[in-house]
Amino acid sequence: MDNLGLIGMASIVTAGLTIAIGSIAPALGEGMAVARALGAIAQQPDKANVITRTLFVGLAMIESTAIYCFVVTMILLFVNPFWNHFKGG
Amino acid sequence: MDNLGLIGMASIVTAGLTIAIGSIAPALGEGMAVARALGAIAQQPDKANVITRTLFVGLAMIESTAIYCFVVTMILLFVNPFWNHFKGG
Amino acid sequence: MDNLGLIGMASIVTAGLTIAIGSIAPALGEGMAVARALGAIAQQPDKANVITRTLFVGLAMIESTAIYCFVVTMILLFVNPFWNHFKGG
Amino acid sequence: MDNLGLIGMASIVTAGLTIAIGSIAPALGEGMAVARALGAIAQQPDKANVITRTLFVGLAMIESTAIYCFVVTMILLFVNPFWNHFKGG
Amino acid sequence: MDNLGLIGMASIVTAGLTIAIGSIAPALGEGMAVARALGAIAQQPDKANVITRTLFVGLAMIESTAIYCFVVTMILLFVNPFWNHFKGG
Amino acid sequence: MDNLGLIGMASIVTAGLTIAIGSIAPALGEGMAVARALGAIAQQPDKANVITRTLFVGLAMIESTAIYCFVVTMILLFVNPFWNHFKGG
Amino acid sequence: MDNLGLIGMASIVTAGLTIAIGSIAPALGEGMAVARALGAIAQQPDKANVITRTLFVGLAMIESTAIYCFVVTMILLFVNPFWNHFKGG
Amino acid sequence: MDNLGLIGMASIVTAGLTIAIGSIAPALGEGMAVARALGAIAQQPDKANVITRTLFVGLAMIESTAIYCFVVTMILLFVNPFWNHFKGG
Amino acid sequence: MDNLGLIGMASIVTAGLTIAIGSIAPALGEGMAVARALGAIAQQPDKANVITRTLFVGLAMIESTAIYCFVVTMILLFVNPFWNHFKGG
Amino acid sequence: MDNLGLIGMASIVTAGLTIAIGSIAPALGEGMAVARALGAIAQQPDKANVITRTLFVGLAMIESTAIYCFVVTMILLFVNPFWNHFKGG
Amino acid sequence: MDNLGLIGMASIVTAGLTIAIGSIAPALGEGMAVARALGAIAQQPDKANVITRTLFVGLAMIESTAIYCFVVTMILLFVNPFWNHFKGG
Amino acid sequence: MDNLGLIGMASIVTAGLTIAIGSIAPALGEGMAVARALGAIAQQPDKANVITRTLFVGLAMIESTAIYCFVVTMILLFVNPFWNHFKGG
Amino acid sequence: MDNLGLIGMASIVTAGLTIAIGSIAPALGEGMAVARALGAIAQQPDKANVITRTLFVGLAMIESTAIYCFVVTMILLFVNPFWNHFKGG
Amino acid sequence: MDNLGLIGMASIVTAGLTIAIGSIAPALGEGMAVARALGAIAQQPDKANVITRTLFVGLAMIESTAIYCFVVTMILLFVNPFWNHFKGG
Repeated sequence: MDNLGLIGMASIVTAGLTIAIGSIAPALGEGMAVARALGAIAQQPDKANVITRTLFVGLAMIESTAIYCFVVTMILLFVNPFWNHFKGG
Repeated sequence: MDNLGLIGMASIVTAGLTIAIGSIAPALGEGMAVARALGAIAQQPDKANVITRTLFVGLAMIESTAIYCFVVTMILLFVNPFWNHFKGG
Repeated sequence: MDNLGLIGMASIVTAGLTIAIGSIAPALGEGMAVARALGAIAQQPDKANVITRTLFVGLAMIESTAIYCFVVTMILLFVNPFWNHFKGG
Repeated sequence: MDNLGLIGMASIVTAGLTIAIGSIAPALGEGMAVARALGAIAQQPDKANVITRTLFVGLAMIESTAIYCFVVTMILLFVNPFWNHFKGG
Repeated sequence: MDNLGLIGMASIVTAGLTIAIGSIAPALGEGMAVARALGAIAQQPDKANVITRTLFVGLAMIESTAIYCFVVTMILLFVNPFWNHFKGG
Repeated sequence: MDNLGLIGMASIVTAGLTIAIGSIAPALGEGMAVARALGAIAQQPDKANVITRTLFVGLAMIESTAIYCFVVTMILLFVNPFWNHFKGG
Repeated sequence: MDNLGLIGMASIVTAGLTIAIGSIAPALGEGMAVARALGAIAQQPDKANVITRTLFVGLAMIESTAIYCFVVTMILLFVNPFWNHFKGG
Repeated sequence: MDNLGLIGMASIVTAGLTIAIGSIAPALGEGMAVARALGAIAQQPDKANVITRTLFVGLAMIESTAIYCFVVTMILLFVNPFWNHFKGG
Repeated sequence: MDNLGLIGMASIVTAGLTIAIGSIAPALGEGMAVARALGAIAQQPDKANVITRTLFVGLAMIESTAIYCFVVTMILLFVNPFWNHFKGG
Repeated sequence: MDNLGLIGMASIVTAGLTIAIGSIAPALGEGMAVARALGAIAQQPDKANVITRTLFVGLAMIESTAIYCFVVTMILLFVNPFWNHFKGG
Repeated sequence: MDNLGLIGMASIVTAGLTIAIGSIAPALGEGMAVARALGAIAQQPDKANVITRTLFVGLAMIESTAIYCFVVTMILLFVNPFWNHFKGG
Repeated sequence: MDNLGLIGMASIVTAGLTIAIGSIAPALGEGMAVARALGAIAQQPDKANVITRTLFVGLAMIESTAIYCFVVTMILLFVNPFWNHFKGG
Repeated sequence: MDNLGLIGMASIVTAGLTIAIGSIAPALGEGMAVARALGAIAQQPDKANVITRTLFVGLAMIESTAIYCFVVTMILLFVNPFWNHFKGG
Repeated sequence: MDNLGLIGMASIVTAGLTIAIGSIAPALGEGMAVARALGAIAQQPDKANVITRTLFVGLAMIESTAIYCFVVTMILLFVNPFWNHFKGG
């Protein structure tokens, strides 16, 4: 097993785990936020607009951490600087 | 065991674990959101429309993290750049 | 142990674990949703239709993550691209 | 230890773990749903029919994830494609 | 250590762990259901019949996952296809 | 270390762990059920008969999973088919 | 290290762990049951007899899982069939 | 390292872990029971006798699992049959 | 495997895990904050401005820990001083 | 590394871990009991004597499991039968 | 692999894990504090100033532990004394 | 690495872990007790004397388990019988 | 790898983990304290001074444990006695 | 790697982990105590003196377990008897 194989294997495993682990918390956090939003709408139906708007801003904020992980996964798979170095070497 | 076998094995294991781990949190988060939505409908039956609509937007948001994982799994199985490099090499 | 044996073994182990781990969260999430639905029906028996309908849409959404895992398991067992490569090689 | 022994051993271990791990969540989820159903009947005895019917649909849905695991276990034990390849080879 | 010994050892360990892990969740789930049933009887003594009947159907459903594991354990111990192959070979 | 020693060691370790792990959940589940039964008796002393009877049926159901494990432990210790094969061979 | 030493070591370690792990859940389950019984007596002092009797039956049931583990521990230490085979061989 | 040293080392480690792990649950269970007993006395000071008596019977029952572990520890340290066999051999 | 390959592999694995682990807590913390904000708006609709403003400051504060992790990941991938040293050496 | 060194090392590690692990649960259990006792005194100041007396009996009972561990630690450090055997041999 | 490579690899892994683990608790703690602050504002809108001020001081205090970790990460990456020693040696 | 180095290393690691693990539970238990004591004083300010006195006796009892661990740590560091044997040998 | 490299690597890893693990609990503890302080201010706005003062003393106390860890990290990185010994040797 | 290097490495790792693990529980325990103290002041502002005094005594008691760990860490770093033995030898 040479360097190229090793770097490739590490990239594959890391790419998968990064998005897998990185999607745990955003999904749970969004679940909490959505669940609470529904409760808030049930409690104050007249304010559904404000609640929904705040919810969507919050969801975008939470989703951003999942997107960081997705970006890193894509970098590792398609523009991996270490892989490029060895492949070109 | 040469590089090709190693890359193949790592891809199989990672593909499976990525979708397996990545489906834990969305399922729980959606469970929480659906459970709360049903409670909200029971509490404010007149607002079932607003609640259901917000629920579906939220579910789509949560499901997106599961889909990130599914996309990465499919990439690893069918358009894996590292596997293609070694197979073609 | 040559490449073929290794790929085979990795596929078996991964296929089993993928569906095993991947069924944890959907089952729990559906359990939560069903449990809450029964409570909602007991609280608002007149709205049993709306509640049941929302419940089934939600269950389908949650079940989808289990089905992603099942699909990956079946791919690994029966149309595994890495296995096919080595078997045919 | 040749390929055949290795594949056999991996199949045995994976088959057992798949059904063992895969039965954790359905049993808990069904426990939650049944427990809540009994509470709902105690709360609204007049609606026992609707509650029981919804419960059984929900249990079938939850049980389905356990059945996915059972199916995979049976495939690994009795129609294992990798074992058949090596045994016939 | 030849193939036969290895397959035997794996079968023993897997058989034990399968039923051990597989009995965790059903026992807890049944505990939850029974506990709730007793509470429901105390709350609505007049409906003890309906509650008990629903409880027993639910317990049977939950017990089914434990029985899946028990079946797999028995298969591994007494009609293990891999063991039979090597023993007869 | 030959096959016989290995099979013996695996049987000992598995036998012990099977009953040890397998007794965790039944004991907890029974504890929950008994605890709730006492609360139910305190709440509805007039129905102590029905409660006690339901409790005992439930305990028997929960105990059954512990007994599955005990049976497997005894099989592994005293009528172990793998051990008999090697001992007689 | 020959077979006899290995079997002896495995027996020692398994015997200790079996009773150690096996006593976790019964102790917790009994703790829950006793705690609840005291609360029930405080709530319905007139029914102390019924409560205490039900408690003792329940404790015996829970204790039984600890006793299964103790029996297996004693078997492993003093009438271990695998040890006897090798010692006599 | 011969058999005697190995058996001795395993006995030491197992003896310590058995009592260490085995004392976790009884201490917690007794803590729960004592805590609840004090609450019950505060709630029904007139029944302090019955409560205290039931508490002590329960504590003895819970303590019994700790004593099982202590007995096994003492057996392993001072009347260890495996150690005696090798020491005398 | 020389130094360069090792450093590359370590950088890949660490970069992925850093952002994956580092995104768990911010997502959960933001989920909690957003969920509570929605509850607060439902409780005091007139103060939605103050609540939303405080929420956004808090979210920025929580997000900052995720950004620390993202910065370190980017440093490891693109301006890694150790990699540069060996690559240039 | 001969037998004596190995036995010594195992004794040191086991002695430390036994008291360390063994002190977790008693401290938590006593914390629960003391916390509840203070609450009970605040609730029924007139019965402070009975409460305090029951508390101390309970604490002694819980402390006993810590003392078992301490005794085993001291045996392992100062009257270790295995160490004495090898040292004298 | 010489000293320099080893030190470099250890620095990379440690730097990543330090900030990753170190950001878990501050994010959760800040989430709790922000969530509670929003609740407090909803409860006492007139005191929003005092609450917000106390919140920000508290957040700064909590953030400080994240900053300790970030500082150590930066030291390890850019002014690492061990790396400098070997690189200069 | 001879016996002396091994015994020394084991003593160092064990000494540190003993006090580290052993201080977890007392600190938590004391935290619970102190927290509850403050609540009790707030509830019954007139009985602050009795509460404080009972608290201090309880804290001493809980602290005793931490002191057991500290004593064992000090024994391992400064009057370690195994170290003395080898050092003097 | 000689002693110097080993000591350097151990120092790097330990320094990072010490501050990373050591910052978990203070951040959570401070989060709890700040959260409760905000609740207390909302409940008794007139006593904001006393509450804030007690809060800051408590935060300093909690922060002290984080500072212990930071001090040890700095010692390991910059005035490490073991590193100095080998470097100078 | 000789004895001296090994002892040094073990001392470094143990020193760091001791204070890191040892600071978890005191910080959490103090957090609980401070949080409850603030609640008690809000409930009984007139008794702020008694509460604060009891709090500080309790914090000192809890802090003591952190100080035990800090003392052991300092001993390991600066007056380590095992290191001194080998260094001087």
